[in-house]
Amino acid sequence: MLECGVYQLLKKSSECEARRGKVYTTRGVIDTPVFMPVGTQGALKGIANEFLCDSGVQIILANSYHLYLRPGIEIIKEAGGIQRFNSWNKPMLTDSGGFQVFSLRSSREIKENGVEFKSYIDGSKHFFSPERSVQIQKDIGADIIMCFDECIPYTSSYEYAKKSTELNIRWAKKCKEEFYKKKGNDFHITQQSLFGIIQGSIYNDLRIKSTYEMLNIGFTGYAIGGLSVGESKEKMHSVLESILPIIPDDKVRYLMGVGMPEDLWECVERGIDMFDCVIPTRNGRNGQVFTSLGKINIKNLEFKKDFGPLDNDCCCPTCQGYSKAYLNHLVRSRESLYLSLLSLHNIYFMINLMKRIRDSLETDTFSKSKKEFFKKYYSKN
Amino acid sequence: MLECGVYQLLKKSSECEARRGKVYTTRGVIDTPVFMPVGTQGALKGIANEFLCDSGVQIILANSYHLYLRPGIEIIKEAGGIQRFNSWNKPMLTDSGGFQVFSLRSSREIKENGVEFKSYIDGSKHFFSPERSVQIQKDIGADIIMCFDECIPYTSSYEYAKKSTELNIRWAKKCKEEFYKKKGNDFHITQQSLFGIIQGSIYNDLRIKSTYEMLNIGFTGYAIGGLSVGESKEKMHSVLESILPIIPDDKVRYLMGVGMPEDLWECVERGIDMFDCVIPTRNGRNGQVFTSLGKINIKNLEFKKDFGPLDNDCCCPTCQGYSKAYLNHLVRSRESLYLSLLSLHNIYFMINLMKRIRDSLETDTFSKSKKEFFKKYYSKN
Repeated sequence: MLECGVYQLLKKSSECEARRGKVYTTRGVIDTPVFMPVGTQGALKGIANEFLCDSGVQIILANSYHLYLRPGIEIIKEAGGIQRFNSWNKPMLTDSGGFQVFSLRSSREIKENGVEFKSYIDGSKHFFSPERSVQIQKDIGADIIMCFDECIPYTSSYEYAKKSTELNIRWAKKCKEEFYKKKGNDFHITQQSLFGIIQGSIYNDLRIKSTYEMLNIGFTGYAIGGLSVGESKEKMHSVLESILPIIPDDKVRYLMGVGMPEDLWECVERGIDMFDCVIPTRNGRNGQVFTSLGKINIKNLEFKKDFGPLDNDCCCPTCQGYSKAYLNHLVRSRESLYLSLLSLHNIYFMINLMKRIRDSLETDTFSKSKKEFFKKYYSKN
Repeated sequence: MLECGVYQLLKKSSECEARRGKVYTTRGVIDTPVFMPVGTQGALKGIANEFLCDSGVQIILANSYHLYLRPGIEIIKEAGGIQRFNSWNKPMLTDSGGFQVFSLRSSREIKENGVEFKSYIDGSKHFFSPERSVQIQKDIGADIIMCFDECIPYTSSYEYAKKSTELNIRWAKKCKEEFYKKKGNDFHITQQSLFGIIQGSIYNDLRIKSTYEMLNIGFTGYAIGGLSVGESKEKMHSVLESILPIIPDDKVRYLMGVGMPEDLWECVERGIDMFDCVIPTRNGRNGQVFTSLGKINIKNLEFKKDFGPLDNDCCCPTCQGYSKAYLNHLVRSRESLYLSLLSLHNIYFMINLMKRIRDSLETDTFSKSKKEFFKKYYSKN
């Protein structure tokens, strides 16, 4: 049996760093490049599993910080793991909670061995160490779990970023030790995979150092954290270009928290295999919709009498079943149905976009496909 | 071709007034007794048509007052009618807006020829007459439309109720005239059916007078309005028992705004064929769930570690796909998905309950079935 999280490179583009591959997990094989929608609390906002399955989603992400606070790890363990709990019978990934803990700037304290923070639900005190985060994620039981790390804010000084990058390296070692530590009937190791996270803010030398150190520790896959947090696209691309060539071809590369449709093309081009982002569901809730002709806000007056679908190129249930005029009415009337319908469409958009990117890699026509996509996507601007 | 709204009595119970029948409409035949879920703005709150269709829902209700104010009649007309607009390709019924207009006690004024009221959306002034309400409902284009009436508040004096009942009779005549008035290419008459509404508050003599007058005017079907507005169940049943025997067997009887599972049994027993109520969706939004073992609130602590379905007897997607523990987590985390999942379950509950009632009428075992239902439904009390 293959180890969970192992990457198989199928084909490399002849024009750029883009890669077509597969990630093997206990609950299924993931075709990459892949976009992972986010179900913070275990559920994609407003979308039932049945609809989600039909969309072609291969893997979803949940947040161990939120699940730890509510419903609590005991309940998920008792259910038999997160996929028994939320009835999503396909691969899942949990993030470590680092990003969330460090977002609570006022109510957390960083120490060498971890972070103390207050629950946003009831103010109770909690402590996450690298070891604790891994234990929690083992209990949650997703196929891929992440090292506990400090996500360095964009505005950090070089000195702060350097210290934090070094701390993250020490923490990553502890995470790996904890992950491979046997404890009684610990069945998780073969069923789960631990990814390291490369940090270093916008400082390429720190990023490169972080990459080498993570490779030294050795993980099944490598994530890049702390990007798309306010820096320019150029800076983000420069960071990717400085570190991706260092990572061996047989390891999967996951860009955390990215991104927009344009990011998928740009970052696949530079060698990224996995993405996650809340944008499809968050935008859906605000009436913002991705279409092959660009982004629209369905709330706008111009759609009040537009009886066509959101996107003529889309086969999602929303486009098959409802008109822009009706969706405009639902959003304006604050009818909760619009949440599901728009989010579902946006999920389909990202999933289909990724499929298109994978198809272009199969036929080695990535650059042509990218050009065609953008020509249409920006045609109304 | 049968006229839209025509009722066919198939079988009468040998034990009570319960009837098994059919209502013929342009967009399909409805098996009665029937429960109609409410989609005030044209959509059932949180439930996509696809799911709704699978539930066995035969007809849904929308509100002409809300649709008139938003998105406005022009848009629905341009779409080709409400069922083109909301993509619900089965029968629909609109209420006249009377109930909503008269709920706005402070911002409306009743005159002989209609009611002036202010929009709850932007404060703009509007006028609904019996004629205008029928015109609006013709434009909306549902299969069954309702006379414009004053829904007399429960606390009204006999004198007020008497005056209002008489006004409603005059308005019903105007509605019928307007409905059958030909206007150019008016195709609605054969495709739509107009129901009269019996009012008279809790005063049986006024109810009886209203019934005879409505029968005199002559409608395809007869609704009973102004019940379940605060009066006791005994009073409601007494009103039904005083008027239902007067209505000929070949006319359908629709009890507006009712009801709870227990009401369906009690009122079918007295001869009601059609019901509508917001309870399944409204309760769903509050975490309240109907089950064959009675009502539960899924938010309660006792369900935190209950990994069974909401109802072992239920075949809905929520019960097939999710546990009580997970639903408890979704409600507590305010994850919008719970809105759809709980509302959908409650809809299935009502639809299946009605199917069970119809089945019992087929085999003439209504009383036995009713007893069995309540024995289980109240077994945990």
